[in-house]
Formats: sequence, structure tokens, C-alpha cells
Amino acid sequence: MNNTTSTIHTYIASHAELVEAALRQSLPTEWEVPASLRESMDYSLMAGGKRLRPIMVLAAAESLGGSLESAMPVATAIELVHTYSLVHDDLPAMDNDDYRRGKLTNHKVYGEAMAILAGDALLTHAFFCVAQSHKKFGVPAERVLAISEELAVFAGARGMVGGQAADMLGEQGITKLEELTYIHTHKTSDLIVFSLRAGGHVAGASEAQLEALSEFGHALGLAFQIQDDILDIIGDEAKLGKPVKSDEKQQKVTFPYFIGMEASEQKVQELTNQAKDALIRSNIPNPERLLQIADYLMKRDH
Amino acid sequence: MNNTTSTIHTYIASHAELVEAALRQSLPTEWEVPASLRESMDYSLMAGGKRLRPIMVLAAAESLGGSLESAMPVATAIELVHTYSLVHDDLPAMDNDDYRRGKLTNHKVYGEAMAILAGDALLTHAFFCVAQSHKKFGVPAERVLAISEELAVFAGARGMVGGQAADMLGEQGITKLEELTYIHTHKTSDLIVFSLRAGGHVAGASEAQLEALSEFGHALGLAFQIQDDILDIIGDEAKLGKPVKSDEKQQKVTFPYFIGMEASEQKVQELTNQAKDALIRSNIPNPERLLQIADYLMKRDH
Repeated sequence: MNNTTSTIHTYIASHAELVEAALRQSLPTEWEVPASLRESMDYSLMAGGKRLRPIMVLAAAESLGGSLESAMPVATAIELVHTYSLVHDDLPAMDNDDYRRGKLTNHKVYGEAMAILAGDALLTHAFFCVAQSHKKFGVPAERVLAISEELAVFAGARGMVGGQAADMLGEQGITKLEELTYIHTHKTSDLIVFSLRAGGHVAGASEAQLEALSEFGHALGLAFQIQDDILDIIGDEAKLGKPVKSDEKQQKVTFPYFIGMEASEQKVQELTNQAKDALIRSNIPNPERLLQIADYLMKRDH
Repeated sequence: MNNTTSTIHTYIASHAELVEAALRQSLPTEWEVPASLRESMDYSLMAGGKRLRPIMVLAAAESLGGSLESAMPVATAIELVHTYSLVHDDLPAMDNDDYRRGKLTNHKVYGEAMAILAGDALLTHAFFCVAQSHKKFGVPAERVLAISEELAVFAGARGMVGGQAADMLGEQGITKLEELTYIHTHKTSDLIVFSLRAGGHVAGASEAQLEALSEFGHALGLAFQIQDDILDIIGDEAKLGKPVKSDEKQQKVTFPYFIGMEASEQKVQELTNQAKDALIRSNIPNPERLLQIADYLMKRDH
């Protein structure tokens, strides 16, 4: 581990810790909320996770000289949205998963009805958090409203939920790489693009700077998801102790399924470079942390 | 039917028509959205309904001299939220209803996964619509952000979702009138209070005017829900052709179950008067339509 990676590890760990603290306080304790609804929301919200999206909000704000404090409500919001999407995705009617990150999924602990409601409440509460960056930290209302609108676009029918719907519909058989790219873009890239732009908005980014953050996020998100596809297969092969045969892979349609492992790895590298270039070409004053995060993500093993 | 009721019927019908048109256009056609997700959202959104909440947004804005146009995005938003809550409430894990307003429920047509996603997308899109009142009609960002925040509060863990969770948890047995009042307040009144305040915000209401609208909405919402309880029982009795015996009613814990029919009817009248008084005492310049809506709701038979 060289110096740069050591530094970015420290950066990520310390920022993740701040995010954890903010998440723990995100639902005001003085609010009268049915106890098991609050518990169910907290259970999934505090279940670990790398907090990558909030860290991207913070890093984008910092790259433009914005403060951590004023970006934190939006960082919290994006993790609430990410968490709700996992709770709903795990439901029996969707992916029907019993475990996530080694813990029972929300509906296995609190029942399906409560898991649906906890997801609904987490999503709704995200928009409350966004508004706090104006109310508590004086980010101009105009910018905060733009964040709120973009959250609705990137997380909604045209964004993440659209990607999830396409994924569900595609289970009967995705036959084109374009379909898979659509799903990856909307299920994964959209929230990453949102995170970066939202951090930018908080810090008063110009249109050109927002555009650079979008380009960075779009390429990085796709690279991240293809990397995930690759790690999935490597993980399965490690578990099986032998290479997964292509007919066994047909269940899980991934990038390597379409273009092979080697080309997929190449694509990850290309997209990462493309992402970094967008930032380097931009007039964002301090893009170093974002560039390091891009490299960090491509070297992860889970 | 006297002249006043004829007028309020016309008012409601014409406003409902405007709302229908706005709802039909709420999800931009140029957005790339998976076809069955769009269909599933539209199916429930355009399934009829009295559009009472949007009409209250419009009437509140008009009572303060606000324009219909500038209030319409928020009116649309509240109907999206109301619709999502119905789609999720009808799910097998929740109320498990096959029909709503004589049509198959969303999950019976599109499957559970798509119904969950359609609900999620409708909720998310509501916050997009709210933002449009600034973007398209120039309502000041500060006010629109307040609307967005209040929507998150009144529709979220402390509001509607909290009420729904309490209702679910209470199915094992609500033993106190206070518990039922909590559920009614949050499942029903909260969105009505929001609708009125949001209309007020659009028109630039003062704190005192917002407070009067809240009081009106809170009392009216509770009256509306108790009236619903009463109509439910009358409806059941009409269907059965005989009075529902009290032990048969135990399944459905309602206001009449706790305090009897007569006292419930009295309570509806009291709350309606209380609601109207709050407006009459206020300095809202043109409260007439809101007062008429209150009377109209209490005379409805469904």
C-alpha cells in the first residue's frame, strides 16, 4: 500500500464515520413515530455498507471548496434513498433475499408490510433531509430545490426505479448488451451522478462544473457496475472452486456474459480513465480526492 | 339541491377536470421509462377518485388570491402521493385487496413487483412536481422548498406512513380511542393539512394564515375519516340488509365501535364546525369555497 492509497483509505474511513453519525441522527428523536417503524428504518439504515454515495457527495462538495457540514444533509439523503431501494429490492415479490451483508433482510425481521412501509418512509424522509441543507446551513433555497428535483429524477421512473423495473422485466431474458447497459446506468450510475451533482450544487458549482461531475459519475458508475459483475463471477468461481461454465452463467446476465472477462476488465479500465479525464479537463479546483476515489473503486475486491 | 350546493358541485367538478388533465401530463412523455412501469403508474393515477386533496390545494391557493396555474404542480404532487399510498396499501402483504373503485388493484394487473415499483416511482415523482411550481410558474424557491419539506413530514414516518404502520400494528387489537384517533389523524388528516398549507404557501400565506389552514385541515380530516367509518357501517348494513351486530363489527375498529353511531355523527358535526370556525376567525380573504367544501364533504354518501 503506497502513500496515496493509504491517504484515500483514511479519507474514506473518516468520512464514512461522519456519515454514520449523521445517519444515526437523521430521524429526529422527538418525532412521534410508531416504535417498530422507527426500528425497522434504523435496522437497515445502520446495517453497515460502505457509504460510497454520501462520500461522493462530500468529496464533490470539497472539490469545489464547499464545507462538509453543509453537504451532510444531502449525503444523508442519498444513503436513505439507497437503503430504501435495497429494502424494497430484497422483498419476496422482488429479489426475495433473506440476507444482506450477513444480516437478515428487513422483511425477515419485521415482516413484509413493515419493510414496505420502512422503505416508503426512508424514501420520503430523504427529501426532508435535503431541505435541511437550506434550513440549517443556509445553502440557497434555489440550489437546494434543484437538488430535490434532481433527486426525484435520478431516483424515480426515469432513473433508479426505471432501472429496477427494466431489471425485473429483463429476468425473462436480456438479449442485448444495450439492455444491460440501460439497467446498469439507471440502477447504479444515476444515484452516483446525482451524488456528485448534489455535492456540486451545495458548493455552488457552475453549469460546466456540474456537467463534468455528471460525466465523471456516469462513466464511474458504469465501471463500478461492470466491476461488480466481474467480482460476482470471480466470487462464484471461488465458492465453487472451479470456473463457472457459460451455460450456468446464463441465469445471471452480466457484462462478461456478453463480451467476456478480458474485454470487461478492459472496459472497466477505459471507463475509469474516461471518468478521470472528464474531471481533469474541467475547471474544478480540487479534483484529487474524486480521482483517488475512482482508482480506489476499481481496485476493490468486494 | 339549493343554489350554494349547485355552485360547489360545479366548482368541484370543474376543478377535478383540470386536475385530471394535469395528472395525465404529469410524467413527461419524452422521458424514457420502461413501458410497463409507465402503464402501471398511469393505471392507478387515472383510475378515477374524487381528487379531493388536489382540489383542496387549489381552493386554499384561491382563498388567498393565488392562481390555479401556479398551484397545479403541487395539486398534482399530492394526488401522486395519495395514489402511491393506495397502491402499496392494496398489496397482499398489506390489506390484500383485489379491487379498488370497481377496478382490479395495481398488483392484480401488473404483479406485485411492478406495483411496489410503481408506488415508489409515484412517490418520488411527487417531489419533482412540487419543484415545477418554481421552475414553471415562478413561485419563490423558498416557499417551494417549504412545501417539499412539509410533504416529506406529512407523508412520512411521522405522518401518513406512521399512521399506516400504526394501523397495521393495531390490527391485532386497538383498545383505545386515542389509538384510533392517532391512525385517523396520520392516515387521513395529515395529507389534508398538507394540501391546504401547500396551497397557502403557493399563494404566499402568512404564518397565521397557514396556522388557520392547518386547524381547518386537521379538524376536517378527522371529521372526514369518522364520516367514512359511519358510511362504512351503513354500507355494510345496506349490503347485508340488516344491522351489523356489534360482535361482527369487532373486526373493524371504528369510531362508532367506541362511542356509538349517534355520538360519532355528533362528533362529525362538531369537528366540521370547529374546522369552519378556524377559517372564519382567520384573516384569509376568501374562505367561502373552503367552507363550502367542508359542508360538501359532510353531506357525501360515499
